[in-house]
Amino acid sequence: MNLILLLSEDFIASHRVKLHGRRRDHILAVHQPDIGTSLAVGLINGDMGRGTVTAVDGQAIEMTVDFDSPPPPPLPVTLIVALPRPKMLKRILQTIAAMGVKSLYLLNSYRVEKSYWQSPVLDRKSIQENLILGLEQAKDTRLPQVELRKRFKPFVEDELPALIHRSRALVAHPNRGSLCPLRVREPITLAVGPEGGFIQYEVDKLIDCGFEAVHLGRRILRVETAIPALLAKLF
Amino acid sequence: MNLILLLSEDFIASHRVKLHGRRRDHILAVHQPDIGTSLAVGLINGDMGRGTVTAVDGQAIEMTVDFDSPPPPPLPVTLIVALPRPKMLKRILQTIAAMGVKSLYLLNSYRVEKSYWQSPVLDRKSIQENLILGLEQAKDTRLPQVELRKRFKPFVEDELPALIHRSRALVAHPNRGSLCPLRVREPITLAVGPEGGFIQYEVDKLIDCGFEAVHLGRRILRVETAIPALLAKLF
Repeated sequence: MNLILLLSEDFIASHRVKLHGRRRDHILAVHQPDIGTSLAVGLINGDMGRGTVTAVDGQAIEMTVDFDSPPPPPLPVTLIVALPRPKMLKRILQTIAAMGVKSLYLLNSYRVEKSYWQSPVLDRKSIQENLILGLEQAKDTRLPQVELRKRFKPFVEDELPALIHRSRALVAHPNRGSLCPLRVREPITLAVGPEGGFIQYEVDKLIDCGFEAVHLGRRILRVETAIPALLAKLF
Repeated sequence: MNLILLLSEDFIASHRVKLHGRRRDHILAVHQPDIGTSLAVGLINGDMGRGTVTAVDGQAIEMTVDFDSPPPPPLPVTLIVALPRPKMLKRILQTIAAMGVKSLYLLNSYRVEKSYWQSPVLDRKSIQENLILGLEQAKDTRLPQVELRKRFKPFVEDELPALIHRSRALVAHPNRGSLCPLRVREPITLAVGPEGGFIQYEVDKLIDCGFEAVHLGRRILRVETAIPALLAKLF
């Protein structure tokens, strides 16, 4: 936690917050604060600044807070990922939030196990918790939007054409198309398949829709490794 | 497992192998093989080729195997990573093996918790298991060399100067130096600190030794995200 992210419900007055639970425990364990200790804070979907500890007790930490600087710029990318297995999804949510992705679609695909859609990791609260962990790590405040799309074909046919408008649309697929481009200058829509990859039909549908296939070389990477590698090359 | 990696002890004749345990279970579950089914195989530290299933029973799978193509080229990098916590270490071993790193030093640093050095993940057998998972994922056969260095200063003073000879030496450190270069042409020695980063003394020692500081922008990434991002930019 390199930034303490504050939610509206943390405020007890206009510039005063009271923190319980995970954030309090973290601050106590890592910063061992005294009255007057200054900590990096950020307002969710707002600016970043400093908090000054005014009270510490067994239950909560109180701070006065001031905000004076904007969060880092987002990556100009819309990411579409075939729903990964729940443990990997948690890490991917943290990673994409840390790297600055602000729009994520979790999509069904032939090789996505049906049971993944029942995972509690997909609850709104759980998604938000993992995104916040990523923002706190990277020192960002803007919460990514996460959308769930349980049907591949209607999404690709009805929704995707408008979504990729004015962006360069790429689908990462091993051994197909060209090497992933470096340092692109335009907004990107990036689709990443499940473990085992999109099936041929799915890749064809994406290419019909206007996607270019790109790859990362001969090595086939896990989705959670491929995503940071692709984002690092593109931006 | 995109490649079934074969060890010398799997061979029951010059071109015949017998597989038990994890690999047998995986082949049965994923490939549902019949006699004659052909599977991608690789010989550890050797060539890749095809295996043809000749027998399947409750205990083992037998194949005849032929090797005809070399593994993908390694990345020209020596990676030095401050020892991460054990769960993250497992994933990092898999990731670096999948991405083609062949030389990894796990190093002590001020912010490495002492208890990490006692983890069973550091047993030779456990290290090799995780590296093999990465090779199987990426379709590679060459096992990375992993060295443990429990003392920072003697390593940096006595061993590192020879190690970085004829390479460009980079230390990844948030907000210091310049942006990580793209598509470098020379061999790289890359040092990555622990969660919380190398301390100032350690960065200074590395820079005295000939390292340049590089960063990935304003966002501070976890080590397991920073490593694939750095490797993706460099190579």
